Amino acid sequence: MKETINNADRAGVLIKALPYIQQYRGKTIVVKYGGNAMINGELKAAVMQDLIFMACTGIRTVLVHGGGPEIEAVLKKIGKESRFVQGLRYTDEETMEVVQMVLCGKVNKDITALIQEAGGRAMGLCGIDGALLQARRLRDTGEDLGLVGEIETVDTAALNAALDSGAIPVVSSVALGIDEDKGLSLNVNADTAAAKIAAAINAEKLLLMTDVRGILRDVQDPDSLISRVTRQELDGLKRDGIVSKGMIPKVDCCSLALDGGVKKAHIIDGRLLHALLIELFTDEGIGTMIEG
Amino acid sequence: MKETINNADRAGVLIKALPYIQQYRGKTIVVKYGGNAMINGELKAAVMQDLIFMACTGIRTVLVHGGGPEIEAVLKKIGKESRFVQGLRYTDEETMEVVQMVLCGKVNKDITALIQEAGGRAMGLCGIDGALLQARRLRDTGEDLGLVGEIETVDTAALNAALDSGAIPVVSSVALGIDEDKGLSLNVNADTAAAKIAAAINAEKLLLMTDVRGILRDVQDPDSLISRVTRQELDGLKRDGIVSKGMIPKVDCCSLALDGGVKKAHIIDGRLLHALLIELFTDEGIGTMIEG
Amino acid sequence: MKETINNADRAGVLIKALPYIQQYRGKTIVVKYGGNAMINGELKAAVMQDLIFMACTGIRTVLVHGGGPEIEAVLKKIGKESRFVQGLRYTDEETMEVVQMVLCGKVNKDITALIQEAGGRAMGLCGIDGALLQARRLRDTGEDLGLVGEIETVDTAALNAALDSGAIPVVSSVALGIDEDKGLSLNVNADTAAAKIAAAINAEKLLLMTDVRGILRDVQDPDSLISRVTRQELDGLKRDGIVSKGMIPKVDCCSLALDGGVKKAHIIDGRLLHALLIELFTDEGIGTMIEG
Amino acid sequence: MKETINNADRAGVLIKALPYIQQYRGKTIVVKYGGNAMINGELKAAVMQDLIFMACTGIRTVLVHGGGPEIEAVLKKIGKESRFVQGLRYTDEETMEVVQMVLCGKVNKDITALIQEAGGRAMGLCGIDGALLQARRLRDTGEDLGLVGEIETVDTAALNAALDSGAIPVVSSVALGIDEDKGLSLNVNADTAAAKIAAAINAEKLLLMTDVRGILRDVQDPDSLISRVTRQELDGLKRDGIVSKGMIPKVDCCSLALDGGVKKAHIIDGRLLHALLIELFTDEGIGTMIEG
Amino acid sequence: MKETINNADRAGVLIKALPYIQQYRGKTIVVKYGGNAMINGELKAAVMQDLIFMACTGIRTVLVHGGGPEIEAVLKKIGKESRFVQGLRYTDEETMEVVQMVLCGKVNKDITALIQEAGGRAMGLCGIDGALLQARRLRDTGEDLGLVGEIETVDTAALNAALDSGAIPVVSSVALGIDEDKGLSLNVNADTAAAKIAAAINAEKLLLMTDVRGILRDVQDPDSLISRVTRQELDGLKRDGIVSKGMIPKVDCCSLALDGGVKKAHIIDGRLLHALLIELFTDEGIGTMIEG
Amino acid sequence: MKETINNADRAGVLIKALPYIQQYRGKTIVVKYGGNAMINGELKAAVMQDLIFMACTGIRTVLVHGGGPEIEAVLKKIGKESRFVQGLRYTDEETMEVVQMVLCGKVNKDITALIQEAGGRAMGLCGIDGALLQARRLRDTGEDLGLVGEIETVDTAALNAALDSGAIPVVSSVALGIDEDKGLSLNVNADTAAAKIAAAINAEKLLLMTDVRGILRDVQDPDSLISRVTRQELDGLKRDGIVSKGMIPKVDCCSLALDGGVKKAHIIDGRLLHALLIELFTDEGIGTMIEG
Repeated sequence: MKETINNADRAGVLIKALPYIQQYRGKTIVVKYGGNAMINGELKAAVMQDLIFMACTGIRTVLVHGGGPEIEAVLKKIGKESRFVQGLRYTDEETMEVVQMVLCGKVNKDITALIQEAGGRAMGLCGIDGALLQARRLRDTGEDLGLVGEIETVDTAALNAALDSGAIPVVSSVALGIDEDKGLSLNVNADTAAAKIAAAINAEKLLLMTDVRGILRDVQDPDSLISRVTRQELDGLKRDGIVSKGMIPKVDCCSLALDGGVKKAHIIDGRLLHALLIELFTDEGIGTMIEG
Repeated sequence: MKETINNADRAGVLIKALPYIQQYRGKTIVVKYGGNAMINGELKAAVMQDLIFMACTGIRTVLVHGGGPEIEAVLKKIGKESRFVQGLRYTDEETMEVVQMVLCGKVNKDITALIQEAGGRAMGLCGIDGALLQARRLRDTGEDLGLVGEIETVDTAALNAALDSGAIPVVSSVALGIDEDKGLSLNVNADTAAAKIAAAINAEKLLLMTDVRGILRDVQDPDSLISRVTRQELDGLKRDGIVSKGMIPKVDCCSLALDGGVKKAHIIDGRLLHALLIELFTDEGIGTMIEG
Repeated sequence: MKETINNADRAGVLIKALPYIQQYRGKTIVVKYGGNAMINGELKAAVMQDLIFMACTGIRTVLVHGGGPEIEAVLKKIGKESRFVQGLRYTDEETMEVVQMVLCGKVNKDITALIQEAGGRAMGLCGIDGALLQARRLRDTGEDLGLVGEIETVDTAALNAALDSGAIPVVSSVALGIDEDKGLSLNVNADTAAAKIAAAINAEKLLLMTDVRGILRDVQDPDSLISRVTRQELDGLKRDGIVSKGMIPKVDCCSLALDGGVKKAHIIDGRLLHALLIELFTDEGIGTMIEG
Repeated sequence: MKETINNADRAGVLIKALPYIQQYRGKTIVVKYGGNAMINGELKAAVMQDLIFMACTGIRTVLVHGGGPEIEAVLKKIGKESRFVQGLRYTDEETMEVVQMVLCGKVNKDITALIQEAGGRAMGLCGIDGALLQARRLRDTGEDLGLVGEIETVDTAALNAALDSGAIPVVSSVALGIDEDKGLSLNVNADTAAAKIAAAINAEKLLLMTDVRGILRDVQDPDSLISRVTRQELDGLKRDGIVSKGMIPKVDCCSLALDGGVKKAHIIDGRLLHALLIELFTDEGIGTMIEG
Repeated sequence: MKETINNADRAGVLIKALPYIQQYRGKTIVVKYGGNAMINGELKAAVMQDLIFMACTGIRTVLVHGGGPEIEAVLKKIGKESRFVQGLRYTDEETMEVVQMVLCGKVNKDITALIQEAGGRAMGLCGIDGALLQARRLRDTGEDLGLVGEIETVDTAALNAALDSGAIPVVSSVALGIDEDKGLSLNVNADTAAAKIAAAINAEKLLLMTDVRGILRDVQDPDSLISRVTRQELDGLKRDGIVSKGMIPKVDCCSLALDGGVKKAHIIDGRLLHALLIELFTDEGIGTMIEG
Repeated sequence: MKETINNADRAGVLIKALPYIQQYRGKTIVVKYGGNAMINGELKAAVMQDLIFMACTGIRTVLVHGGGPEIEAVLKKIGKESRFVQGLRYTDEETMEVVQMVLCGKVNKDITALIQEAGGRAMGLCGIDGALLQARRLRDTGEDLGLVGEIETVDTAALNAALDSGAIPVVSSVALGIDEDKGLSLNVNADTAAAKIAAAINAEKLLLMTDVRGILRDVQDPDSLISRVTRQELDGLKRDGIVSKGMIPKVDCCSLALDGGVKKAHIIDGRLLHALLIELFTDEGIGTMIEG
């Protein structure tokens, strides 16, 4: 930060944040954490501070995360060769065991530790705890992907227990198999988990942290950011090829949340320091906001 | 504010405020409002924002005020000649009526309106409401000053009703006469009222807004500010003439609060925009802090 | 009271009051206080006792008051000449300042003090506190009356905070300007304020204290009192000229309350000692009861 | 009641009761019901009204009763011959069965029904319910009196469940045998039960309804009533023979309550209509008050 | 119990009960107690244990009882001759007094004592307490049966006060007369009282303890038990004479409960030791279950 | 279970468990889970049932676990060579990462899943969550063991959040480094963690599941089990060599709990099916009970 910012400026910044603080107090915001913001140390530290700031100003904050790179690293370490099905990794039992260990035991608890160490309170959970995320194996796609699940039901009791006790629940995307898949842990998509949790808990906002600036009208032109779009307009953007490739699942995930009653979904650029705070507490905001 | 402050800087400022937000959440802070900050329009608006910011970040905020200049103006308007006793105005019955009308009916409700209009919640009270401030006429001084009271008891029930309902209680320094003074309204010193309220409600801090920078080692040299002093050291400062004249009652009032269990009392410069925010949420703070 | 009333008689009176006590426990009753009962010392003291009696037997009691004569007196004192518009005083800014000071600072706090001194608990509020009475300037009448407001919205949170803490809220008829009148205090009719508050808080009864016996079939004949009338019959009474002149606004105000869901509205004679107790706790009652 | 009592007088009576209502709100008062007030129909009806009045003004009211005459009547009906031990009836098993049936099944439920029919809420209990009164057989007296018990422990949970639900607990003096008497119902003295309950529940007052005016200095002279006496003075009164015969157990019972922390115990004349109301809500009171 | 049951077997039995414990936690079950289970000492003791077991595993348990044989015995003892109307005993005033004494004073409190002595908590109530059972005299039958009532209204407040305080309410079938029967105690059928209470309190189950195995397809063949039947099938069973004689009122009572919203009603054989536990916590269950 | 156990026997078993159910309702019991009971599938399933049974009968149940064998297996899989210090494995950073992944991500969540699948509710936590277990590196032993910690402080807030929401907290023995070890995860002994948690949460009992029968007077003779011993007698048993080798840390851990206020600590044989149920709900109990 510029050394030249004086106290008057500081006060001015706080006061500019006030209307937003007033607006979000007591509301629930679900953050999907991922990408560079989960890898780069400086970004990581900033996210933790942002989460604590949010919690301290009265926002009921839920963090959902995946952890592809860490899983990759451990699979490599144990020399596990992966089989690919149409470009997607097949999740066999051994892989699932690694996924669960890494997500629930390493990534989840490391994030929880960072929040605690920064002076916040956090509880690290996964979809198994209190049957938070109940899933069935994905069967209706043409291919068998192994232990990959589709979330059927979200039980928010464990989240509310954590939130009511003043803690930030940190949730990893491992689900509890139900019905014919009872007894299995299932790997679920973290973006979808965040969207389903946001809908189930009546969140005000879903914030998806990505490694892009948001939806760009021209993918080559970083200045062509679409700041604001409605749920209805998304289909047109897809048809026109403006929403394409990797942006499609992000956008679909936002739609899922909005259709479930969430007020607004944001695709934000997690590569910016304090992206969450900037999005929530400044006039400009960042990234693309999709309204329901 | 500098137009050049960018989003990253803004986020930095918010994050620098975070440890203070964490520290004060759920604590009670009593602010004695007065001086220029109550006259100048821009300062006034800034104080209201600061109070709402405090309330929004979970501080139980109590505002206590007097209103000398407004009383003066109305007395003049009605052509009331004042009698002075050793340089102090004698508060006869007619004057007391004006004091009560101006403090409780004008100043108090105007402040309350400003907070409400700025998006906060406030309830304007005085020492009569719920017998918040119970006083006896000051008799042990050599001179009879008329309807001037000394606070005997503070009943915090009305304050807690307001705070628990999410409102900032705004308190004017008019007390309810008790015992031999039952039936009278009494004029009490607002600084003392703030100190006694702070002690009775177990406040974390008392913030006295004044028109000076704080305690100056050399009253001529604004750079000789004493930032930090302990309750014990105050006597020495008085003896050495460093605390003198108008500063003596301010300092005595801080001592009163500290002796009653308040953790810290601050003499701050209300002529600065957002003095409260700067004091509470920045590293430097401002003015003089007296520790118990 | 007759010295000849013995203990048996006393017990009999208490027991006769019992069914009424049972009936009103936990219900809300709004009293519009005004007229002689607010001027005469003996009547005043009796009203305070009645209010405390009501509160003690479990009635959630709200007192609403105006204060014409006191305003008049202060305006005169400061030599303020009033401009009249079609016989109504024009409320310019200076007048409004006096209205607010007198109602909120003098009348309101004096009543509050009387209740406290009589052993009750009270909190003096006005329409500004917690934005209890939100109003707009009256513009649709042909004439501009200055800062006279019409109540748009009633926010009962501050009333409930006071009632839940065991205090009687005492409310003066000054409102907070909203929308295009934001930033202004507005003078509102106290009868209307009482009626709107009664409706907003789901009161069981509205009691309007007046200086007449109630609705008289023949205004010359004090024995022609109509004890009971329905909301539907009021139009006929107006058409027949039985309800006329000063009684019209009183009756309209009762209609307003009843249309807002209040069960019963009473026009009672505040010139009688303990008119409230007699109305509420004896078989005969007094004045005119209008049923919804 | 005199037909000549007008509304003003009625209001006066209510207002005179107000300080007492204020004083007793939220406090617990235990009434020992017995004597003529339990036999005479008019007195009975008046007691029920008094109890409801007490409950309605916020007094946590507990009624304790015995029922000698009713027991007598049923014993006679079934032709049960009683054996007497030093002038006291021996409570054999068959007698105890009758005692329990009459007290818990007839007297208790009849009182409960009277309260309910008069518009109050009551729950009829005995010492067995929730083990409210736990007793051992009286063994240390020289003579074996059969199933007569001495109260060892009072468990107030059932009383509080009733009081918290807004009901008046009506308690008959049958206790649950404990330890070596487990499995037995025991007949306990109702005065003592009332005193022990009053102590266990931290009652403000114990009111013993008797068939005398109170403690008389000269038992022949009804005007020699001692209105007020302290716990300490009782021994002297006994020594001087002023407290003698049937008054001794009454006075001992009051001492028991006072020693257990009850503030005041009253011996009142239950032959007066509304003796409870007169005692509690008028200036004179009646009977003898013993202060702790 | 077989001495040969080892610890492993014991654990197995507990674990087999677990799904039932999970199923009933927090639910309300109403037990109609009667027949041999109320006479035989061993059966009685077992019922008390069952009730405590139910309460301890979180079932909100309500016990309703009558007491024909005990009433009979006392009537005989006092030499009361009964008049019969079409084979039914006429309940005159004196009989009603005995009914009330025996049910509320003897049977009810004896059961309450047994539960307390076995380590449970119980409160003995009847329909008079808190006006739990409000009834009118049965008039529409051709014959006048005296003080026999039909339940009009059930007020569950007293039951909930007991249940919320952790006690088992034990309810005897004596009702409070209302309307034209105000002032009377009325004798009501205990089965019907249990059914009406079960409906009013939204019970999960009604368990009727009888002296038969359940509904038998062939009344001569104890092995012809119908374990399960629906509400709809009952009419057919009656038409076919399978449900006949004494079974008709039992079945009608179950229908009453089911029509009132109770999920399941069971006719069980109270002559078996621990019939309640076996019904609730074992796979087989016993008796006949009627589903709504 | 024997097929010959009939319903009467079943009921008998349940009733025999009743006094224990009554005794433990609302109490907290901490179970240290380990050994064969965590490996053998049948034993595992039985433990889960036992835990749910405990929770269902109102016991606040906390499960603490380690997981040596699973850690071993994963270390082997990734080809990690361990360095040993005086026979103890040195926990380097890579090893600690594996410990955390396996304990928090695999073992912990697998247990949580088993409880959920068996119909219970569980939340998987570790010492990082809510800073439940705060530790410093073990430095005062002669040797450096790497990232092995000693628990300094236990914060039970997260446990209580889980328990109050009706879930069984499952806790893995990984702690949050504090002070000079801030930023590190530390490996702590699970027995000690259980003992410290039991003390901090005021547990009634600590149950240590082991692979031995308890303390044997003669280690060769399984029939020489000491069923009951006091805290004071332990020193003598150690001195006499009866408590030796692997039993020493178990016994020390019990002492730690008892010294911290836990009422009783038990060393039980986890190789028995339903060892927890048998210990808690049968007369004999199993293993060795150490009383404080």
